[in-house]
Amino acid sequence: MITIGDEILSGRTQDANMPFLAQALAAKGIPMREARTVPDVAEEIVAAVNALRAKYTHVFTSGGIGPTHDDITADCVAAAFGVGIDVREDARAILATNYQNPDVDLNEARLRMARIPDGATLIDNPVSKAPGFSLGNVHVMAGVPKIFQTMVEHLLPKLADGLAVLSDAIRIDEPEGRIAGPLRKVAEAHPEVSIGCYPFQVDGAFGANVVARGTDPEALAAAMTALREMAASLAAPA
Amino acid sequence: MITIGDEILSGRTQDANMPFLAQALAAKGIPMREARTVPDVAEEIVAAVNALRAKYTHVFTSGGIGPTHDDITADCVAAAFGVGIDVREDARAILATNYQNPDVDLNEARLRMARIPDGATLIDNPVSKAPGFSLGNVHVMAGVPKIFQTMVEHLLPKLADGLAVLSDAIRIDEPEGRIAGPLRKVAEAHPEVSIGCYPFQVDGAFGANVVARGTDPEALAAAMTALREMAASLAAPA
Repeated sequence: MITIGDEILSGRTQDANMPFLAQALAAKGIPMREARTVPDVAEEIVAAVNALRAKYTHVFTSGGIGPTHDDITADCVAAAFGVGIDVREDARAILATNYQNPDVDLNEARLRMARIPDGATLIDNPVSKAPGFSLGNVHVMAGVPKIFQTMVEHLLPKLADGLAVLSDAIRIDEPEGRIAGPLRKVAEAHPEVSIGCYPFQVDGAFGANVVARGTDPEALAAAMTALREMAASLAAPA
Repeated sequence: MITIGDEILSGRTQDANMPFLAQALAAKGIPMREARTVPDVAEEIVAAVNALRAKYTHVFTSGGIGPTHDDITADCVAAAFGVGIDVREDARAILATNYQNPDVDLNEARLRMARIPDGATLIDNPVSKAPGFSLGNVHVMAGVPKIFQTMVEHLLPKLADGLAVLSDAIRIDEPEGRIAGPLRKVAEAHPEVSIGCYPFQVDGAFGANVVARGTDPEALAAAMTALREMAASLAAPA
């Protein structure tokens, strides 16, 4: 995923779209492999689009498709693919339904939102009409979370389902340093399952959430059994 | 910045460290230029470290320096720089102060946290002792937010101060499509100031926060004056 916008990089706005998309993809069996946040700078956006579309099955972008001068995502995606871009009639017609008086209200700035790279397929936007688009394996969506979420919900059913990624977790109230040795043995004994250890500290007490992920339900269950036995042996008096 | 961890990419955990660092850097006058989130996969971490350390003045990493098998950040940073890595005595001594009985409690897993790449400088960790480190322009810190934040607070004063980035904002309760045309003119008239437009929708009403950023206080004030005049003219009856 590529999140586009100075606003996220300044720390002023927390990126809600990345966690939303990650969870929505996981539910469809598509693990997110990388996330990049880049500024509103054309060469950075073009470089990120080209790097990730060559590397991954799907690339999703968030932000930079509104009407203002810093909304340059569509032009950058067109540049990344080396295709033309212009106002497209079907996109203009969709936008026009948003205005009582489209001849007046659909001004030059708003028409920017109908600029679609050649060869792209539109992504519906029931919230505020201005469409996203898919070009090749790159899916371009709005940055406003409500619109982004609606676009994701329209888009994902059209992408091929992968194998669902299953996950389970166990909380262990021991310091990570005690967990680490036995955990490595469990991880080595269950190579089909990806096991992560996420430490926390609450009121001075250390603990960790151990999360197991995999596509095979039986392998996942076996790993969780081993993790529960490990937790019990850590909790038992020496 | 590089955030390391499957946990963030799965959407299960929201990355709190990126916004914290972005704000802390901005206060020191260092704008964050790019953020990447990569999985707990060695080749991905090495590639991200090498890509960003060549591209930017400073690179900050979060996560993957604990005692468990999936904590591979230190090894990856050493590999990225092509230097060796081993348990370092000063780091081991710091860790030992955490345990009443270090000969027993400082087990093999915990000793992983004293593995420091050759040539690195330690970053203090008053919360749980296990240090971070700086190697060249790469600053490696913990993923647990409380520890990450403490490390950032210790590290940043040692980095050279840049010019402080100033910002100001105005809220305009008009749809972005009405704002965009006049806003472009303001942006073009104030090239020293970076002006972003961040639309929102609340209860069906559209509006936008317009944020201006720059290093010259007078240029910023002039841009804000122009933005206020623009907002007033938009609100005035036609």
